[in-house]
Parts: sequence; structure tokens; C-alpha cells
Amino acid sequence: MKVGNRHYRTIWLNDDGRTIDIIDQRWLPHEFRIVNLRNVEQVAVAIRDMWVRGAPLIGVTAAYGMAIAAAEDASDAHLEKTWEYLNETRPTAINLRWALNEMLATLKPLAEGDRAARAYERAFEIANEDVELNRSIGRNGLEVIRKIAATKKPGEPVNILTHCNAGWLATVDYGTATAPIYLATEEGIPVHVYVDETRPRNQGAQLTAWELNGHGVPHTLIVDNAGGHLMQHGEVDMVIVGTDRTTSRGDVCNKIGTYLKALAAKDNGVPFYVALPSPTIDWTVDDGVAEIPIEERDDREVTHVQGKTEDGKTVSVRISPEGTPGANPAFDVTPARLITGLITERGIAVASTEGLKALFPERS
Amino acid sequence: MKVGNRHYRTIWLNDDGRTIDIIDQRWLPHEFRIVNLRNVEQVAVAIRDMWVRGAPLIGVTAAYGMAIAAAEDASDAHLEKTWEYLNETRPTAINLRWALNEMLATLKPLAEGDRAARAYERAFEIANEDVELNRSIGRNGLEVIRKIAATKKPGEPVNILTHCNAGWLATVDYGTATAPIYLATEEGIPVHVYVDETRPRNQGAQLTAWELNGHGVPHTLIVDNAGGHLMQHGEVDMVIVGTDRTTSRGDVCNKIGTYLKALAAKDNGVPFYVALPSPTIDWTVDDGVAEIPIEERDDREVTHVQGKTEDGKTVSVRISPEGTPGANPAFDVTPARLITGLITERGIAVASTEGLKALFPERS
Repeated sequence: MKVGNRHYRTIWLNDDGRTIDIIDQRWLPHEFRIVNLRNVEQVAVAIRDMWVRGAPLIGVTAAYGMAIAAAEDASDAHLEKTWEYLNETRPTAINLRWALNEMLATLKPLAEGDRAARAYERAFEIANEDVELNRSIGRNGLEVIRKIAATKKPGEPVNILTHCNAGWLATVDYGTATAPIYLATEEGIPVHVYVDETRPRNQGAQLTAWELNGHGVPHTLIVDNAGGHLMQHGEVDMVIVGTDRTTSRGDVCNKIGTYLKALAAKDNGVPFYVALPSPTIDWTVDDGVAEIPIEERDDREVTHVQGKTEDGKTVSVRISPEGTPGANPAFDVTPARLITGLITERGIAVASTEGLKALFPERS
Repeated sequence: MKVGNRHYRTIWLNDDGRTIDIIDQRWLPHEFRIVNLRNVEQVAVAIRDMWVRGAPLIGVTAAYGMAIAAAEDASDAHLEKTWEYLNETRPTAINLRWALNEMLATLKPLAEGDRAARAYERAFEIANEDVELNRSIGRNGLEVIRKIAATKKPGEPVNILTHCNAGWLATVDYGTATAPIYLATEEGIPVHVYVDETRPRNQGAQLTAWELNGHGVPHTLIVDNAGGHLMQHGEVDMVIVGTDRTTSRGDVCNKIGTYLKALAAKDNGVPFYVALPSPTIDWTVDDGVAEIPIEERDDREVTHVQGKTEDGKTVSVRISPEGTPGANPAFDVTPARLITGLITERGIAVASTEGLKALFPERS
């Protein structure tokens, strides 16, 4: 999407046709830095140290890493070594493993001399496939926004609340939860986004607000506590969030605090949508609250906040007294009963076993 | 309550019998500073610039301000001038006006020579009345904790979630929402408190955590997003919060985010209590969501966070991009239907018109 007046993806082939450029997301929202990754080691660091983040983007970055490896030395041995090396950077990222396997399966049948060219081609295809997936989610979500817009006075915006960052920065472009918002903007439908700051890591304040700011989408930052009050007073027309994992019956595991917003939406009759690419549906899990283990992260994320000082330094400040411990569950599960619809690339599913099977009959 | 091993109130008469000492709350939780207020001007600054905060504590501070005035010059003219002067420090604080009126009404009938002594006596009585009010709330809330404790294994704590600071720092001692917790601790009932950090001003992280830390009450700081997840997993036995204003039918206006916790409590069968001195019941208001105007505060509280740097400086850091505006509603309203009980100094009322009238029949 746009940063200032220019369109960016999160990752692209450099003009040299060999190295790749990424947005180094560690410095957002305070600095917009583009970094050139020239070899496999640099790609590994970028993934491991979260210069890039978000499952789809990690996968594409790894695919380009394999392409750079093929340009260095297209032998089976070097490609397999690179597979191992990159696979260890973020061991639990499902897209990472998928992209590495896909690249190896694509390249191995080819003659060594043909591998590098095909590798860059396939990596670019994977990037484009992600963009197309998100555009499909966007088109399906756009229908919901259009219907709400039709009930508004001319010029009156559709107010959308979102939590965390399921934006283009987590993907190659468009994002998941943000895709309907960007497509509505492209279509000239006035939207206004309430951005939950999303403590403890503040991805809403740091990433979603930055995205919307850069693309010129009207938005307002709020604390995570404020959404219920806004819904009570008719200030929110719909909620759209992303998800890390959706169960076969439509329970949604997403950033901590999503459940509280879903409760408020239900209590106030506000439609609550979850945007997701179907690969994030875990068909082996049914009851999300009972079955999904929740990552407990470092309590320093709770006791400290990162931000920029008046004199331009990015620092971490302690907000609580020494001696007070913190607990930091990173995700929660929103039960399907609170969800209006699951916006997938195939259409909007009712959040239920039947709803998901109707849209994905091959899973029945 | 205790700070380290010593018992403190938030305000007390200095050993000189004339000036007063307060905890300067601007520096908490990072520094514990006691300040001596020697004249009416200093008392006014302490109230206006929020060295002391919390309606009950503001009232007592103003009462001592009138006592200091009487010691300076006990004439009607000086006392009335002091009334005017202190009344302007926080114009909307109901307890401030009440305390000033009470002092003037007590002193005016007396001979000038008797006024100073009586003024210090009456200010101390007002302080003690606040402590007694809170102890009564505490004793009534303690019954609830005792009942839950009886269902636990020996040594297993009662897990209590709280939001914002309705603690002893907002009163003279004990606090309102915290009074049952402190009394349970005095009685040896094991409790553990989940402290919501309470963005945007972080009064949970800065004040409640500091109080509990100082008094040795086991507690864990969490982000405001985490409470729902903890309740889903049986980690919370009850919620107790304070309130700024309660309507005649039991709707509760309290710090933004309270409503979201009440929804989660209801959804998970967790009892949700509100602790309140009966003077905060507004018998003229019925429907809290519709009728109570919500203060909209500076959006800098949303876009910035205050904390302490590694090298010990207290600074304010920006967490969001330049150009992103914030919205900052300071309170929300929790409808009575979500509230298990209103813990008052007279007992626990059902949150309804009938429930409140049963406890306060003189209002019928």
C-alpha cells in the first residue's frame, strides 16, 4: 500500500535482479527504513530478528532466500543446507516451512543451470499469490462495508474497529483484516478506523496506525479499554480483526483482547468479522478455549512500554513498580457464537462447523 | 496501609501540630516522596496539581487547609477567603465543596480563639470518618471473599481482578475496592490480585500495583486485554472495582474499560462487584449509558505513555506515528444487569432500583 505518495510492498526484488529489499519493521512507526538483503545469512537475520514479521511475509522472505541461495550455488547440497538454515529461524511459522518445501520441490527437478531463474520466478509467484489471496478476502469483506455504507448519509463514513495488526505489513500487500478497508478506500467509500493500540506490544498503535496514516485512511487511535464505550454509543458500525488460528467450528485465536471486543460487539449488536486466509484454519482443533495452548510471553512486555522520546530516541520505559510481576498471555480465543462471519478468500462463512464445511466441502 | 514495614495514611498532621504531611503521588510508583504543606497556598497547589487525588482525599486535604487557615487568622473574613480559594482548585470535586462547607459551618459559631483547635480536631474527624466508611465497605466485601476462600484448598488464594485505582491512595486509608482485599490480608485469608494496568493513565500499574507491593499483597500486573482470557480459564474468582458515580438503578460509571471486564465476568460466571461509599450514588440519574456525559480527555494520554528509563528518568514516550489522532473517553458505564452486587458501607445491594432502595429506604 502507499507510504506517502508511493506504493510499496513489504518485500521486492532489487533492481539488481539478485538481492531483495524489505521494509525493516523494527523501526516503525518512528522510522521508515528499507534494507537490502544480499545473501542467505542476511535473510536469516531478517526473519529471526523480526525485521519482517507476519506468517505470509515470513514465507515469501524465505522463498526469496532460497532464490538468493540458488543464485549463489544451485547444487542440491547448497539448497538443502539453505533449507535447513532458514527453517530454523522461526521454528513454529507454518508458512516458512511451506515456502521452503515449495521452493525445493520446484527447483530439484530442474537442471542446475535453470534453477536460479526459476527460483526468482517462483518466489515472485508466491508473493503474488499472497497478494491475490488478500485481495479476494478484501473483495468479500468489501461487500459488508458496502452494505453498511448504503445505510449512511452521503459522505458519512463507515466506522470500523480493529485490533492488533493484520495489515499489509504482515503480508506482502493489502493484509487480511485491512484488505476490505483498503479496497473500500480505493472504491471511494468513506471509512474511518478505530485502531486499538493493542497492549502489550502496541502493534495497533505502531503498525496499523502507521499503515493507515501512510495510505491516507482516516483513523483514530484508542486504548484497548475504549471500544466497549464507543459501541455503546453507536460509534462503531463493524469490527474486523485477523486471526492466527481458526478451529473447525469457527473459534478464533487472535491477539489478546480480541475476545473482550467480541463480547462488546455482541452486547451492542455490532457485527464482528474475522478475516482469514483458509490455510490458517486448523481442521484438527474444535474447541478453541479448551484445546489451543496460549503462548505466555516475557512479562517485560507488560511492565515496560517502548516509544520515542521528545529528543527522538526510541527507548523502553518501566510503567510499574520494581517488584511487581506481570503475566503476559499473548492470545485469547473468541468463541464462534460471538462471531458474525469469517471472511475467507472463498466468501464469508458462518462461524460454525456447518458454515466452514459449506465453504470448504473438500474438508467434509 | 503499609509502605515497606511502616503504616501510612495519605495525609496526617505533622508533629509540629500545625502543618500537614502528604504523600506526593506524582512520583509514584517510582519514588515515594512525603511533602510538608505549611500554608494555604501550598495546600491549594497540592490539590490543583494532583499531588493528592481521589475525591475523599481531596476533601480531607481541603479540611486541613481550612485548619491551617484558622491557625493563621481565625477571622470570618480569612476563613471565607480560604473557602473561595480552595474551592476553585478542583471545581467539580464534590467532596471538596462538602468538606469546605462542613469546616466553615463548624467554625463560624465559635469564638475566634477556639476556632483553630476545633478546626484541626474536625479535619482529623473527617479523615477518620473516611477511614471508617472504607472499613465498613471492607467488612461487607470481606464476607464475599470469605465465602470464596471457604471453597478453596488450604493455602490456595482467592484470585481477585481489579481495574484502575480505587485504593487507599485515593482515600485516607484502606480505599474502596481495595478495602476488602486489605481486610482479608489482615485476617490471613490468602488473596492474589490481578491488576489491570488501566491505560491510558496506567493507574493500575502505577498506583494499585505500588499499594499492593508496599503492603505485601501478592499480585500480578496484566494488560487490560488479558482479563477475559484469564476468566475463560478459571483464573479469576471475583472482580472488585470502584466507581465515580452510581445511578439510582445501579448502573456504574467507572474508569474506561470497566464495562469490558463486566461483560467477560458475566460470560464466564465470575462475580462482579463494585465498591462504593453511598455518597457517590447519584439518585437523580437512572440510565447511566444514556444520561451520564463522559469526559473526553487530551489525546496525548493515548498517543504517549509515561514511565521510567533505565537510567532513572521519568519521561513520556510517543507510541504512535506523528499524524495519528487519538480519542480518549475517560470513563464508561457498566449496566446494572452485569453487576453481581454493590458493596456499600451499609451492606451489599443488588444493582437495581429495588436493591438500592432496600438498603437506603430514606431515599424512597
